[in-house]
Amino acid sequence: MHDKATREPAAHLEREIQHDRVRALRWTERGLEVLDQRRLPDSSCYRLCSSAEEVARAITHMEVRGAPAIGIAAAYGVALAARHRFEEDPSHWRDNIHPDLRQLAESRPTAVNLFWALERMENKLKRIEGDPFPPLLAEAQTIHAEDISANRRMGRWGTDLIGQTHGVLTHCNTGSLATGGFGTALGVIRTLWQRNTELTIHATETRPWNQGARLTLWELEQDRIPATLVADSAVAYLMQQGRLQWVIVGADRIAANGDTANKIGTYSLAVAARRHGVRFMVVAPTSTIDWQLPHGGLIPIEERSENELLPPHYQRPESLVSAWNPVFDVTPAELIGAIVTEKGVVTNPTTDTMEALR
Amino acid sequence: MHDKATREPAAHLEREIQHDRVRALRWTERGLEVLDQRRLPDSSCYRLCSSAEEVARAITHMEVRGAPAIGIAAAYGVALAARHRFEEDPSHWRDNIHPDLRQLAESRPTAVNLFWALERMENKLKRIEGDPFPPLLAEAQTIHAEDISANRRMGRWGTDLIGQTHGVLTHCNTGSLATGGFGTALGVIRTLWQRNTELTIHATETRPWNQGARLTLWELEQDRIPATLVADSAVAYLMQQGRLQWVIVGADRIAANGDTANKIGTYSLAVAARRHGVRFMVVAPTSTIDWQLPHGGLIPIEERSENELLPPHYQRPESLVSAWNPVFDVTPAELIGAIVTEKGVVTNPTTDTMEALR
Repeated sequence: MHDKATREPAAHLEREIQHDRVRALRWTERGLEVLDQRRLPDSSCYRLCSSAEEVARAITHMEVRGAPAIGIAAAYGVALAARHRFEEDPSHWRDNIHPDLRQLAESRPTAVNLFWALERMENKLKRIEGDPFPPLLAEAQTIHAEDISANRRMGRWGTDLIGQTHGVLTHCNTGSLATGGFGTALGVIRTLWQRNTELTIHATETRPWNQGARLTLWELEQDRIPATLVADSAVAYLMQQGRLQWVIVGADRIAANGDTANKIGTYSLAVAARRHGVRFMVVAPTSTIDWQLPHGGLIPIEERSENELLPPHYQRPESLVSAWNPVFDVTPAELIGAIVTEKGVVTNPTTDTMEALR
Repeated sequence: MHDKATREPAAHLEREIQHDRVRALRWTERGLEVLDQRRLPDSSCYRLCSSAEEVARAITHMEVRGAPAIGIAAAYGVALAARHRFEEDPSHWRDNIHPDLRQLAESRPTAVNLFWALERMENKLKRIEGDPFPPLLAEAQTIHAEDISANRRMGRWGTDLIGQTHGVLTHCNTGSLATGGFGTALGVIRTLWQRNTELTIHATETRPWNQGARLTLWELEQDRIPATLVADSAVAYLMQQGRLQWVIVGADRIAANGDTANKIGTYSLAVAARRHGVRFMVVAPTSTIDWQLPHGGLIPIEERSENELLPPHYQRPESLVSAWNPVFDVTPAELIGAIVTEKGVVTNPTTDTMEALR
């Protein structure tokens, strides 16, 4: 797969790289270094994973999160497993690696990219002769590089669609920390900022896990991109003041008609955006589209433990207080102005217009 | 002033009292005990204020908050000041008390009830012969009791308007902790719950200060009323599921046309409510109405320090990250189904219909 970015002048690439310094995953000779995102922004620590088991644990415990980043981590995990199994027994490594692949597949249940990446690595693995480590590492590195390229392309296409703007807002974290690098929705914002330093970038806090306050702001600060934090509840008032033109978000699953599941609070932003004439963009690779589901009402919405939201005081068994903690919500396609993917852009998504992305 | 509640059967009153046990303020022989709301829900501590200066400090430092509660605290502060000044010099107490009154007036800038209560105490003070403490204490206790009565009346009127419902939501804290007792919006919810124990009461977290999670849930739990916490950003999704019929909120200032300033996030809830056919009620005493302001665009909106919202990591002077932290927003009257006051209820508020409350 060739990407347009590789054919562009070096100066342009250099400028992009200056504003994309953070990496959730770094390959070294010793193994895969994973940035522990649970500890951001207070401390920025990479932890070395030198086996598939360690990679699976890092995914399960959310040291690395974001569907594309999880897929890439798993791909490196397969390469590490192959190195170990080949050293252990050069004749039977292809049989012995199966428990490692299973362990990686069971590390998180919902991220589609995890299964996509494992399938691609298995296809490669079947055709290897001799030491499997060099070709599998190369395949993982290709998956990683392709993800960054796809994000850069989406960044340019989203930016071309937006044109001139002075106020944008994003929700949750969809940046270099959630992907191979550059990001999806945050990739568009990064590209916008490269073209227009007068832009004001707003990030929601993103309750209850604070991915916006903890991760997005940290990532932008590392890249010297200024940003303004707002409470999730203050966005409608920000729109009322005329200070926003676009809301730009990622996606966790997109139905065939364009209905989009994303971090809880996305729907609320879309409703407020419609009232104020603020445009609404979803940025995600086509692997996020679930063509099996005709509409968003069929997307299963994960509800996590109430203790992620409840103050400790109410976590006593006898408490009369409970909490409702859905992790995602579904924004109907009619509220979405554009869906930007690596295969193209669909404005005003419907079942018919979405077909262009198949 | 007579209140209908005092003419009702004792059994009804008893039931109401069972579900209104919390008091922000308690008068004892030693002085005014103030519940330190900054420490809720982790610890519930009353601190004795035995002078006007101590009462003023408790208001300034937000141990007591909520406009009606602040007014009542200040009234008790005047009684304490009079006791001290009369003991000090029975001939000149009326002159010597002025610095105490000024200190109370300067304790918080925006709560209208503070100035209203001080003016009422001063009017009483001017007509006193002999020891001023007993009549001034009686006046403070009357202000306190009248506030509870007004809240009970608003509770019944709001409940009558709502009729049958199975899901309501409130924002911030407008309960016994914010008033003399019973509460405004939370008073309506308390009354609804007495009539309908099948009701599900939702409270928003209310970022960034978490008045909902910290105060409203604690207060309801003390009264054995079950409640469910939701993130501010999850309310639109709750509405999308058909689980809410009414949003019920208080007010910080209401313009002559019904536009209502209230805790940040209220406007966002009103926008989502309109989309889903969820009705929207404001509950506040008429002292909250600013007849001088023809519309809500003229209400000054306080913006507080960004450090109330920013994680500590970004509070370094060289950080590129900032935060926007408005404390209130304005909900236009067209999104408000009803304004409930102690003088009556206005549905579909406009400049004309609001006149009934003058």
